[in-house]
Amino acid sequence: MNLRRLIEAAIDEDLGPGDLTTMATVPAGVRGEANVLAKQDLVVCGHEPAALVFEEVVRRLGGKVRYDVRCPDGARVDAGKVVAKVHGDLRNLIIGERVALNFLMKLSGIATHTRAFVDAAGPDGPRVVDTRKTTPLLRDLEKHAVRCGGAFNHRRALYDGVMVKDNHIAAVGGLTEAVRRARASVHHLVRIEVEARTLAEVEAAARTDAEVILLDNFDDDGLEEVIAAARAIRPSVVLEASGNITPERVKGMAARRLDLDIVSSGGLIHQARWADLSMKLA
Amino acid sequence: MNLRRLIEAAIDEDLGPGDLTTMATVPAGVRGEANVLAKQDLVVCGHEPAALVFEEVVRRLGGKVRYDVRCPDGARVDAGKVVAKVHGDLRNLIIGERVALNFLMKLSGIATHTRAFVDAAGPDGPRVVDTRKTTPLLRDLEKHAVRCGGAFNHRRALYDGVMVKDNHIAAVGGLTEAVRRARASVHHLVRIEVEARTLAEVEAAARTDAEVILLDNFDDDGLEEVIAAARAIRPSVVLEASGNITPERVKGMAARRLDLDIVSSGGLIHQARWADLSMKLA
Amino acid sequence: MNLRRLIEAAIDEDLGPGDLTTMATVPAGVRGEANVLAKQDLVVCGHEPAALVFEEVVRRLGGKVRYDVRCPDGARVDAGKVVAKVHGDLRNLIIGERVALNFLMKLSGIATHTRAFVDAAGPDGPRVVDTRKTTPLLRDLEKHAVRCGGAFNHRRALYDGVMVKDNHIAAVGGLTEAVRRARASVHHLVRIEVEARTLAEVEAAARTDAEVILLDNFDDDGLEEVIAAARAIRPSVVLEASGNITPERVKGMAARRLDLDIVSSGGLIHQARWADLSMKLA
Amino acid sequence: MNLRRLIEAAIDEDLGPGDLTTMATVPAGVRGEANVLAKQDLVVCGHEPAALVFEEVVRRLGGKVRYDVRCPDGARVDAGKVVAKVHGDLRNLIIGERVALNFLMKLSGIATHTRAFVDAAGPDGPRVVDTRKTTPLLRDLEKHAVRCGGAFNHRRALYDGVMVKDNHIAAVGGLTEAVRRARASVHHLVRIEVEARTLAEVEAAARTDAEVILLDNFDDDGLEEVIAAARAIRPSVVLEASGNITPERVKGMAARRLDLDIVSSGGLIHQARWADLSMKLA
Amino acid sequence: MNLRRLIEAAIDEDLGPGDLTTMATVPAGVRGEANVLAKQDLVVCGHEPAALVFEEVVRRLGGKVRYDVRCPDGARVDAGKVVAKVHGDLRNLIIGERVALNFLMKLSGIATHTRAFVDAAGPDGPRVVDTRKTTPLLRDLEKHAVRCGGAFNHRRALYDGVMVKDNHIAAVGGLTEAVRRARASVHHLVRIEVEARTLAEVEAAARTDAEVILLDNFDDDGLEEVIAAARAIRPSVVLEASGNITPERVKGMAARRLDLDIVSSGGLIHQARWADLSMKLA
Amino acid sequence: MNLRRLIEAAIDEDLGPGDLTTMATVPAGVRGEANVLAKQDLVVCGHEPAALVFEEVVRRLGGKVRYDVRCPDGARVDAGKVVAKVHGDLRNLIIGERVALNFLMKLSGIATHTRAFVDAAGPDGPRVVDTRKTTPLLRDLEKHAVRCGGAFNHRRALYDGVMVKDNHIAAVGGLTEAVRRARASVHHLVRIEVEARTLAEVEAAARTDAEVILLDNFDDDGLEEVIAAARAIRPSVVLEASGNITPERVKGMAARRLDLDIVSSGGLIHQARWADLSMKLA
Repeated sequence: MNLRRLIEAAIDEDLGPGDLTTMATVPAGVRGEANVLAKQDLVVCGHEPAALVFEEVVRRLGGKVRYDVRCPDGARVDAGKVVAKVHGDLRNLIIGERVALNFLMKLSGIATHTRAFVDAAGPDGPRVVDTRKTTPLLRDLEKHAVRCGGAFNHRRALYDGVMVKDNHIAAVGGLTEAVRRARASVHHLVRIEVEARTLAEVEAAARTDAEVILLDNFDDDGLEEVIAAARAIRPSVVLEASGNITPERVKGMAARRLDLDIVSSGGLIHQARWADLSMKLA
Repeated sequence: MNLRRLIEAAIDEDLGPGDLTTMATVPAGVRGEANVLAKQDLVVCGHEPAALVFEEVVRRLGGKVRYDVRCPDGARVDAGKVVAKVHGDLRNLIIGERVALNFLMKLSGIATHTRAFVDAAGPDGPRVVDTRKTTPLLRDLEKHAVRCGGAFNHRRALYDGVMVKDNHIAAVGGLTEAVRRARASVHHLVRIEVEARTLAEVEAAARTDAEVILLDNFDDDGLEEVIAAARAIRPSVVLEASGNITPERVKGMAARRLDLDIVSSGGLIHQARWADLSMKLA
Repeated sequence: MNLRRLIEAAIDEDLGPGDLTTMATVPAGVRGEANVLAKQDLVVCGHEPAALVFEEVVRRLGGKVRYDVRCPDGARVDAGKVVAKVHGDLRNLIIGERVALNFLMKLSGIATHTRAFVDAAGPDGPRVVDTRKTTPLLRDLEKHAVRCGGAFNHRRALYDGVMVKDNHIAAVGGLTEAVRRARASVHHLVRIEVEARTLAEVEAAARTDAEVILLDNFDDDGLEEVIAAARAIRPSVVLEASGNITPERVKGMAARRLDLDIVSSGGLIHQARWADLSMKLA
Repeated sequence: MNLRRLIEAAIDEDLGPGDLTTMATVPAGVRGEANVLAKQDLVVCGHEPAALVFEEVVRRLGGKVRYDVRCPDGARVDAGKVVAKVHGDLRNLIIGERVALNFLMKLSGIATHTRAFVDAAGPDGPRVVDTRKTTPLLRDLEKHAVRCGGAFNHRRALYDGVMVKDNHIAAVGGLTEAVRRARASVHHLVRIEVEARTLAEVEAAARTDAEVILLDNFDDDGLEEVIAAARAIRPSVVLEASGNITPERVKGMAARRLDLDIVSSGGLIHQARWADLSMKLA
Repeated sequence: MNLRRLIEAAIDEDLGPGDLTTMATVPAGVRGEANVLAKQDLVVCGHEPAALVFEEVVRRLGGKVRYDVRCPDGARVDAGKVVAKVHGDLRNLIIGERVALNFLMKLSGIATHTRAFVDAAGPDGPRVVDTRKTTPLLRDLEKHAVRCGGAFNHRRALYDGVMVKDNHIAAVGGLTEAVRRARASVHHLVRIEVEARTLAEVEAAARTDAEVILLDNFDDDGLEEVIAAARAIRPSVVLEASGNITPERVKGMAARRLDLDIVSSGGLIHQARWADLSMKLA
Repeated sequence: MNLRRLIEAAIDEDLGPGDLTTMATVPAGVRGEANVLAKQDLVVCGHEPAALVFEEVVRRLGGKVRYDVRCPDGARVDAGKVVAKVHGDLRNLIIGERVALNFLMKLSGIATHTRAFVDAAGPDGPRVVDTRKTTPLLRDLEKHAVRCGGAFNHRRALYDGVMVKDNHIAAVGGLTEAVRRARASVHHLVRIEVEARTLAEVEAAARTDAEVILLDNFDDDGLEEVIAAARAIRPSVVLEASGNITPERVKGMAARRLDLDIVSSGGLIHQARWADLSMKLA
């Protein structure tokens, strides 16, 4: 679902046949202005869907709304900062407020949470990336929030990258054969990643032509060992660690100078709480 | 968007034109069985969308999948418990796994988080309810999760209840007039709630025919005072407290026997982290 | 389905791949002007969908159309009155004419028919309201037409109000228990209405906490009796009469000063015939 | 919009996120049986959408419903007749009842109203047909209802027949030229009809190669004159009369043995009131 | 599916969540200009979908694009000719290029291929028409391309013309009866065509009131014989030849002055290869 | 658009409100059986959409149809072979025939055309792959047809692979920088391909970390030279040739033993004509 359709469905969900309260109490034609305020320190994210929410409200109810970004997506702001200003028909401002804030709060929450991991990694640590553990229908927005927090994205979906996991390996009877089959099948712009859970698996993986090895659920000592083993076999292989990744642990990995390329964590998204923002009429 | 459409869009998002890895490595026709496991203590929620995910995968790829619930939505389970079993084509199990878990983890997270508030309120405390701070497009599922956690729902949307807030009052020049206009406009099966932020506003609200007063952002002493004032004017008015609601505070309110009907909190949903569940092939 | 989608589907239905006649005979680029005329005395309704019809035609075929309302929705006009003027590409005017008029004629028919009930009730009679007997997919438009005719709406749908009917009561084994269950289940901004068909049921209903009683299919003497009984038990209960409601009967009820709050009738909508309007090129 | 999509939208409209009353009061798993009853003499129409309504409810809520037709579409039945029986989960029966009846009542109303015109025409009178004055989005259903009433359909839409009207003629500067252009443009399976309002226009139309002439708004004497004139020029031309068509007038035309092929009337549909049917639990 | 929806789906298909390459390499805000060039002699077709492609890209990504037609649909142009110019954001130009060209190349291919048939027929030969052998979802565009090539369209679909084929005749037990049933059933603006494969069938068809006879798979001598037979029975019947139609054969038919009205060929569309066009940044 | 939706839209396009001819002439309830026949030597492709066409017809009109594959997708068959059998309601067979064949003919045409390239390459020649020059909305089906013809697919769309072309290089001021930016931006499972048009560009490309070089529009001598140059710099780089690829040329390349990995050609799809298949009632 592209973003316009998603916004349309979000307005259907909250507005449906109409806002009983606002239509009853707020006169038509009155104009207003509102500030979108950060109520905590946060990394901003969500201006595009928020602005489209007001566009969609206008498309349904008429009138005009202007949404002016003051602190763009990705900006770190302190509590109290005005991140956007919204001008227009008072009815439209009030009607769109909740849905717009739902996007901004959710996405800024992810950006802010992600930022902690990225700061922990520092400029020399591994690249922090997300996973496919995302809220259904909101994946593109959440992955954008991850980038706003300074991290990177993993493959988007099942169709744009190969990730050979334990179940695939079991089904085909071996890691090496699984990678071979994947390579024979997929187009030549796709890389292959293979999951490895033991030293033996890491070594086997390094001997395939998978470009990336997922080092799954090793502790830091374990990582050190398997990284060395993999690099010994194929120095240029991309190494990704996953499992129990927290900002603290990322900090430790960076300090320890583990020769990792990537750490991935679903928690960037699914352990993030919404950030606090509000919209106040001026 | 009804649930079938939502599931269809979720599969479009993750599967799109096809799962490169699984189609390359897992032979057609192989069958399997998997357990959906709680990896922490949690309240289960999300079986319906999870089962529909596999149905939709089958509709696209053929074959069969059976999804058997072992611990129904709303059940409290300990870590290690099998909450569902899934049988069928191995390809379909692997392809549907992530999206099904994304629903289960997100919704069980909300149910589990909500449960803490409800337990804090105890049998004699106020009714715990949610708000319209929900993830766009997932409101019905999230509100179901809140019920699974033992709490109740507030109005669903802008169209099925009247909530007169400060902006409405400001636009019309007074709380009493705003309630009057709302009553004159809406159908006779809708109740009216009005937000009050000071003692004077609470007293004014109690003199209207709004059935419910939202006591917004009072501390416990403040609540005690305005509850008494409201009850003195209209004993049967429904009183709802909101703002900075945590399980700890709810416990305190219950202990203090505040004469409140309802506490509402967006945090049931937006401060919930995903619960941990996995799907393991047997 | 929101209004834009509905209009889009209506144009798909009538225009589909193209207007054979107009494209063959009317040269591109010719502009014209047309009057939308009332051909009978009527209450106007339908300008919004009519204007959107021309917008949608323009979106598909290019060009421009301006739709100027002369007599707004809700206005009572005499036969011969111009209720709107439409300017623009002649092709677009001719292509949109039928669908625009289909909306205007149908909705003005309902508004006009409803007006007769409202006039019969007079300023002191009961509030006239509609029901859920509406044309599938057009409910919001038809309910708007009812308001244009001076009447009010009942609940919109199954999700925004509780109406406990005979089948619900039978299923649960009693009116009192049915109301109790409903109250325990629904959110606190929903009112409950319960249907009663005998004096005993009316009395039982008045003793529940249902805010509204539907007095179903009583004649005027019967109504007088059960109204008195209900008021004796709970003076403030909202009383709604339904069944065989005609303008004549409403007039009689008003003359008799029955202490009713509401009369409801599906016939406002389903017994209305289309009003006669046409669109004439100037 | 095909019929399945229409039914889906109709259920979205009435059921939306759920039936508050039925879910609160009717226990899951209880089964029931209901009769769909004619409450007046009528011609039945609408079984297909009614049955699909229950199918769609089942698709959303689970369970089973069987819809058995007792008197098929097109049957004339007396008041009191059971036209269908519905068995299944009580919740589903109650939830689908209103939408199913809305289809049946609306469509049976059209079929019944149409029947009066067809009976008036008798076996030797002109063929009775409808027009494009139909309820937006319901055209196919309404045209089916017209056939159930014993009448025939006119072209469906702007794309499947040519109807040259006064505006087209004016735009191109003459009836003859308009027909010529239409013939040159459209495919060879399309017939052309041209509207004529005076004797001179009828004669001109008969000299073109339009297969059908619409005799618009003539009284019966006028019709007699122009029919004779048209037949004199081209005996096989199809002649259609329109304007102020009522059953009484059709009867008169048949008695007078006017040499007409067709009478068309939008009133078959837009002057029909809903027929009265109900659904009673057995 | 109307054209806007089709374009939206085409962009979903090719762009989906984003153009990895362009977003990574082309800076935002840079503007450019491109020429759409014919790389072979061709008949132009496809400007409308091509322009809408860029509109849709702009709707998603912001910015502006102007698409200026230089050689309109239907123009014959030599290799090297600029058929359109596109100005706007460089990102948008590059992102829309492929889909726009896919429409232009496919449709110009059909227009160019069709032109060869039409030129072969010459001004006095039979009218060249297409069939229902079209690419699913693109029928309206392909039929437009046929018209751009100078040919005409046959009926659009199963609903806007009657074509009685061998299977229908077999099912009903005879050509005459099949035509009779069709005439009794369809509306009076539909013509009937009947397929005939032998002299006897052609003679039988000419004695029905089908307006058109499809002479299927006769060679030129056979055609000459059956045309004479049909004209002897009903001089004005429309005669259409089909089967193995090539430009060469059409030329021969025209030279032989066969008294045919129409030749139809699915090959106008399904034997057309894409024409070669490119888009070059200026 | 997923395949089910595509089929639904294809039936909307051809069937719309109904098949005039079949409903008029073929009695309900009659059953039949038909053979889908190859009328030329061909590679079969399209059974899945063909079978879904009949499923969708059944979903709309009721009844049953069974579609039995006799020669699966990818099979090479001689003219006269029965590739599928279809049993069921005669109406449904006739109504679905055209759309089912449109899919089968188009896709078998592509598979057959592709097969010629693949046979020319032989077992030791380069891998033959397609491009993004595909019919809008049918890309997945066409890419499946390419695989049925024995070839492979290139990236699916703009989102699942990086292809740095001349315009990207120009925008960023150099091939090396463009590749660097792409690598920094995209996820780590994406490979990068860069287009090179001269020996110098090929050498520059071989010095980046792009995994694939597109050798664009070189003749065979030119290819030999640049392949050697690229291999000298980076032996393992994947080399893809494109531009003016025909089966004859592919044969020549294979004979010459050019050290190419891949040849790509849009012509697999856009120069393919439909194969000839028919459906005959048994």
